[in-house]
Amino acid sequence: MKVGIIGAGQLGRMLALAGYPLGISCTFLDRSATAPGGLVSDILVGELDDAEQLDTLATQVDVVTFEFENIPVTALERAGASAPVYPSIAALAAAQDRLEEKRLFESIGMQTAAYVTVDAAEDLEGVGKALGWPVVLKARRLGYDGRSQRVATSEKDLEVAWAELDCVPAIAESWVEFERELSLIGARGGDGDIVFYPLSENVHDNGILSTTIAPFEDRTLQQIAERWVSEIMERFEYRGVLAVEFFHTEAGLVGNEMAPRVHNSGHWTIEGAETSQFENHLRAVVGLPLGNTAPRGCAAMLNIIGRMPDSAALLRIPGAHLHDYCKEPRPNRKLGHCTLVGPDRPSVSERLSRLMAIVD
Amino acid sequence: MKVGIIGAGQLGRMLALAGYPLGISCTFLDRSATAPGGLVSDILVGELDDAEQLDTLATQVDVVTFEFENIPVTALERAGASAPVYPSIAALAAAQDRLEEKRLFESIGMQTAAYVTVDAAEDLEGVGKALGWPVVLKARRLGYDGRSQRVATSEKDLEVAWAELDCVPAIAESWVEFERELSLIGARGGDGDIVFYPLSENVHDNGILSTTIAPFEDRTLQQIAERWVSEIMERFEYRGVLAVEFFHTEAGLVGNEMAPRVHNSGHWTIEGAETSQFENHLRAVVGLPLGNTAPRGCAAMLNIIGRMPDSAALLRIPGAHLHDYCKEPRPNRKLGHCTLVGPDRPSVSERLSRLMAIVD
Repeated sequence: MKVGIIGAGQLGRMLALAGYPLGISCTFLDRSATAPGGLVSDILVGELDDAEQLDTLATQVDVVTFEFENIPVTALERAGASAPVYPSIAALAAAQDRLEEKRLFESIGMQTAAYVTVDAAEDLEGVGKALGWPVVLKARRLGYDGRSQRVATSEKDLEVAWAELDCVPAIAESWVEFERELSLIGARGGDGDIVFYPLSENVHDNGILSTTIAPFEDRTLQQIAERWVSEIMERFEYRGVLAVEFFHTEAGLVGNEMAPRVHNSGHWTIEGAETSQFENHLRAVVGLPLGNTAPRGCAAMLNIIGRMPDSAALLRIPGAHLHDYCKEPRPNRKLGHCTLVGPDRPSVSERLSRLMAIVD
Repeated sequence: MKVGIIGAGQLGRMLALAGYPLGISCTFLDRSATAPGGLVSDILVGELDDAEQLDTLATQVDVVTFEFENIPVTALERAGASAPVYPSIAALAAAQDRLEEKRLFESIGMQTAAYVTVDAAEDLEGVGKALGWPVVLKARRLGYDGRSQRVATSEKDLEVAWAELDCVPAIAESWVEFERELSLIGARGGDGDIVFYPLSENVHDNGILSTTIAPFEDRTLQQIAERWVSEIMERFEYRGVLAVEFFHTEAGLVGNEMAPRVHNSGHWTIEGAETSQFENHLRAVVGLPLGNTAPRGCAAMLNIIGRMPDSAALLRIPGAHLHDYCKEPRPNRKLGHCTLVGPDRPSVSERLSRLMAIVD
């Protein structure tokens, strides 16, 4: 089987590596020939909406998928003329627009932060009154890793924030006090089967994921989250991996955002679960049965950001697994990640601290 | 880091796939551009002793290794002029010659089958008297997967067998009655650290490995085998994975043969151990610390030989992991393997039976 992947970042790279054992070979479309995915599989170089390259890609593969949610819908429609595209373009479209996403979440009864839309300067006036302060201002489109969002603590602040977002259509959300951030990753197969990984607990730093520990064991929250994510999947006749991020608050789970793709908070599944999110995404899009998502004990994942540590020092920590994406170092850039697996959370947490001292 | 691998079969393929997450990229030398390894990484096409290609390979990598033991020693010496070669060429040379291997085993006090050398027709006469019948006649060189060996039950039979081996220098071994076949896989790192996987229990069919179940739990046998394999490693200042196959007899372990490379009976370590044999081989040859070899419960590996089964049927078995080498089907050819992991042997054995019914 041949799978075309739009985008060749680390997510694409790990998809391609998960595909090889299954006899699946992936071809990428990406702007850069030296993108992480292009170092492990074939790559077509072009803009993600380059019509000619999209046609070339789609005609040489059995199915097209993507590893990045900010791909123009028109690009996927173009590819879709020559090969099936999974997950569905409608799911991608909903995830690309924070207002659409909000409405989707509300429509299935998921709690979300209160919000108002900001389409024009006069909309800024009513925000404080409606939501209180602080608020989080988010551009409706092209949000990723905390980019395109600002926290504002006053109307004056909000005006500056909106100007910094180039006055694009946005939503302002009320501030959510949370105990922790959780995410749920599931996959829906070609036969409609749905599987879920256990909830993962995530810590962000400056809007970028820093660590994930899984499983976060709470049967009630797991069931609630699974019901919501199942509903989203059924709505779109979804095929592939879907990730939804939640705030865990005193009032329960509050939906934050969804990603119609494999997700950074699921990287621990490579070593920490029976079948990884990457393998299950591929199994889903090519129509193979989904694999067991059971965790192998407790796992911790640490992102390596900005600078690669000495790999020997890192691998000297018992049970440390390194994933080097082979990217050029750059501030705030995800260069790799490291996973630890152990029988329980204390055994993993202790080693995670040692790892963090090396990775800084 | 860049690693050159001589030979691009499935072992090379799985080495390259284990290397990518560590930031190690592999380049192969193989006769065929479509060899399994060449489908996942760069490949130079040429005979394994092609001087020019060996030079090209060795000058573009940090270290050279091999996935196949029947490489001319002169080829490795050629590569060794431009890059370090691990495991040591001396270890490879010993494994290439069954008489040298026997002497090595004897020198460290390992029990082996009684044997006599067969260099000329007149040597055949004394075989029955020395060893009794049946005997196993093995060409001294180029043995692999039971090729180049014959069982003979009489002197007449032995004459035919030797003729079938083209009357090459050989050894005749006494028949060993065994309860089971076991193998021990270990790795020695650049810092001299040695790690071992638990003993694996192997079932061969027509001289080709059919299934492996691990761990085979016997602390005494494990210790004995580890002591022997450590001695071999120290003798050669070994770097990389070394596999030794044993017969488990009433009198304990009897050494059969060694392979100075990753080994089919260690494929279960990809899913079944904390760090796979492939990753540990690479860590050893590039000088990274070795990874934890602890098993994750019990694992069973089934080789897929001659014909690829329907992958959907296979993946429907809970917890089944497929490794498709993407080779053209051919009788007796290893096309892939499948691994099952579970908490204990009964849970794995039951699913292994179901798998065997599909793979036939």
